[in-house]
Amino acid sequence: MVLKIEVPGFVAGAVAAGLRKDQRRDVGVIFSKVPACAVGVFTTNQVQAAPVLLDKERIKSGRAQAVVVNSGNANACTGPGGVEDAKAMARAAASALGIAEDLVLVASTGVIGRPLNIAAIEGALPKIVGQLSPSGLLEVAEAIMTTDTFPKAVSRQERIADKSFTVAAVAKGAGMIRPDMATMLCFVCTDVGATPKALYESLARAVDGSFNTITVDGDTSTNDTVLMLANGLSGLNLEDPACAKAFQKVLDEVLATLALQIVEDGEGATKLVSILVKGASCEDDARQIAYTVAHSPLVKTAIFGEDANWGRIMAAIGRAGVAIKPETIQIHFGEILVVKDGQGCGQSAEAAGTKVLQADRLTIAIDLGMGSKTATVHTCDLSADYVKINADYRT
Amino acid sequence: MVLKIEVPGFVAGAVAAGLRKDQRRDVGVIFSKVPACAVGVFTTNQVQAAPVLLDKERIKSGRAQAVVVNSGNANACTGPGGVEDAKAMARAAASALGIAEDLVLVASTGVIGRPLNIAAIEGALPKIVGQLSPSGLLEVAEAIMTTDTFPKAVSRQERIADKSFTVAAVAKGAGMIRPDMATMLCFVCTDVGATPKALYESLARAVDGSFNTITVDGDTSTNDTVLMLANGLSGLNLEDPACAKAFQKVLDEVLATLALQIVEDGEGATKLVSILVKGASCEDDARQIAYTVAHSPLVKTAIFGEDANWGRIMAAIGRAGVAIKPETIQIHFGEILVVKDGQGCGQSAEAAGTKVLQADRLTIAIDLGMGSKTATVHTCDLSADYVKINADYRT
Repeated sequence: MVLKIEVPGFVAGAVAAGLRKDQRRDVGVIFSKVPACAVGVFTTNQVQAAPVLLDKERIKSGRAQAVVVNSGNANACTGPGGVEDAKAMARAAASALGIAEDLVLVASTGVIGRPLNIAAIEGALPKIVGQLSPSGLLEVAEAIMTTDTFPKAVSRQERIADKSFTVAAVAKGAGMIRPDMATMLCFVCTDVGATPKALYESLARAVDGSFNTITVDGDTSTNDTVLMLANGLSGLNLEDPACAKAFQKVLDEVLATLALQIVEDGEGATKLVSILVKGASCEDDARQIAYTVAHSPLVKTAIFGEDANWGRIMAAIGRAGVAIKPETIQIHFGEILVVKDGQGCGQSAEAAGTKVLQADRLTIAIDLGMGSKTATVHTCDLSADYVKINADYRT
Repeated sequence: MVLKIEVPGFVAGAVAAGLRKDQRRDVGVIFSKVPACAVGVFTTNQVQAAPVLLDKERIKSGRAQAVVVNSGNANACTGPGGVEDAKAMARAAASALGIAEDLVLVASTGVIGRPLNIAAIEGALPKIVGQLSPSGLLEVAEAIMTTDTFPKAVSRQERIADKSFTVAAVAKGAGMIRPDMATMLCFVCTDVGATPKALYESLARAVDGSFNTITVDGDTSTNDTVLMLANGLSGLNLEDPACAKAFQKVLDEVLATLALQIVEDGEGATKLVSILVKGASCEDDARQIAYTVAHSPLVKTAIFGEDANWGRIMAAIGRAGVAIKPETIQIHFGEILVVKDGQGCGQSAEAAGTKVLQADRLTIAIDLGMGSKTATVHTCDLSADYVKINADYRT
């Protein structure tokens, strides 16, 4: 089965412009044949890349028609010159596409602090625009990869009465992944119609249940960006409650799928681990503990080593800054109870727990026994390859 | 030069009791010939090991005469049975030493969640007590090592008029190291005299300037313990202001030296890195940023890779949860300015910065340009060996 990622009214494409050391695609364009409703969610890092600064300004209009993106250089910590480069990149795309400059949004990912090779991007844009195609979103998914090992793209279609709408999205992740948001780029294309307000609310909700529940290494990037363009060509509109409901469900699913793909492809990751915290007094407590466990290098390395070392989980819970009672804590690895009332369940339980850790995907469920609130965070293990990838990243 | 770690009136010793997989020393005793003033600082983790629970109770008296310690097993998450084991360990030491049981303090380090082999410890104690010697503190330093690669011991002597006092301390660290406190044990012996109140204040101050400024991986253990015994045999007393001043200076220096030894010997560490944050509006802000940078896996792996990737430092600063202005930030690697006003200083500065990273010890100085407050945190790099050590720890 060939993955088909197409949305009516959208075309896309990407080429290798020479921004990367290898000869992979590194500059891409997504184009809607008609101006679309556009919304975005951006990094909460106070150090924000030039394209983020530009997009946050432009997206206030609620309209856009194209996105131009590059990998190989984050255009971050590049000062006023960086913002000029981001604008020049948008201008070159607008010129090649024959649309107004302010309808173009920009994204970048890669090394921080180096000037963008804007000439290479300007040179590539006419070529990209000359070969845009409905199936080109997959090329964009490739062009935004950094240390990602596979391109991330998802598409879903839904029928409402005699009409149907599509939501397709591409994303990149790999390192510097944590919520608010992951270091990631994600571009969502859909043919529903919407007001910017309705579209933003839908996106914010979907991001909260997807990208904001994942973490690889706790580092938040300077470039995180999720953009959504809705061109309305399906004839369906979020003003229709049935469409709004169906759209939210589809969007939630598309972004959740991409979020899990990002964690699964975390730098050096060998396992996808879901940390489920329940029995908390409030959701914030549950989330705080889930993240503390998910970020603990000792927990992550034990999982990599397939060692049912639940003591490190207890230690992480105890230092999370949330009031707990060790003696009311239960921990399951998959279906196996490994900690009962704060104490280990013995060697046979540990042996069974170790088997759970040998799987590619697993859930660690922590019941605090303090209340009824829950939170889930998805993360990956910490392998020697993570270190290798990040020690050698720029060399 | 042979390191001499002796304090008048103290004897110590350790043997291999078989708690560890290798045949290294794993149970030790420190004994003061007279009952000493005793104070302690303990982990802030809410999951506290049995010996911590016991010591916190016993030390309220302000008096102790012996410490018994084991490695190979943390006696943590072991429930009421664990506390009974900690008491039994103290009882066995008291019996062998011929002193009251409540004058014995206990410490453990090693794997969490397994029952202590108390019979082995009880069996070893008469043998240890039979061979206690003034130079035995170094044996204790060896006996408390877990993944430490070298024993940590420091001794200083100071003369006041015709008398002199000694402060000697042994410690262990390696992983699970972060402030409040490091995963560490530290036992300080001195022959000054003091009230528990004066001794505690002096210890708390010295810990704040030493163990509470270091971090390896951000994990706080269940067993962190610093104990100090002061037997008064020097004839000097902290009630004398000259002695109090000299003692504080010596104690600060002894603990700071041990703290740096712990970071230097962080699991898999190849470099000792001091993160100095200055120009902050308040000390808390400076400290928060220093820790965020020190804990960032991306920063730590870049340092391991000797890559002057200052963009990751900027990104860590930006997500630390402290209000900053990217454009007022300066970053030095050693003497080399690599970031000026939030932007890179170019390739020749980066090349010079890379040279700084090639040293075993280096300072990264971050000036926020927001005020005059400072904070320093000492950490190490994150190497592939850290992962290997922690993935394989129990196997």
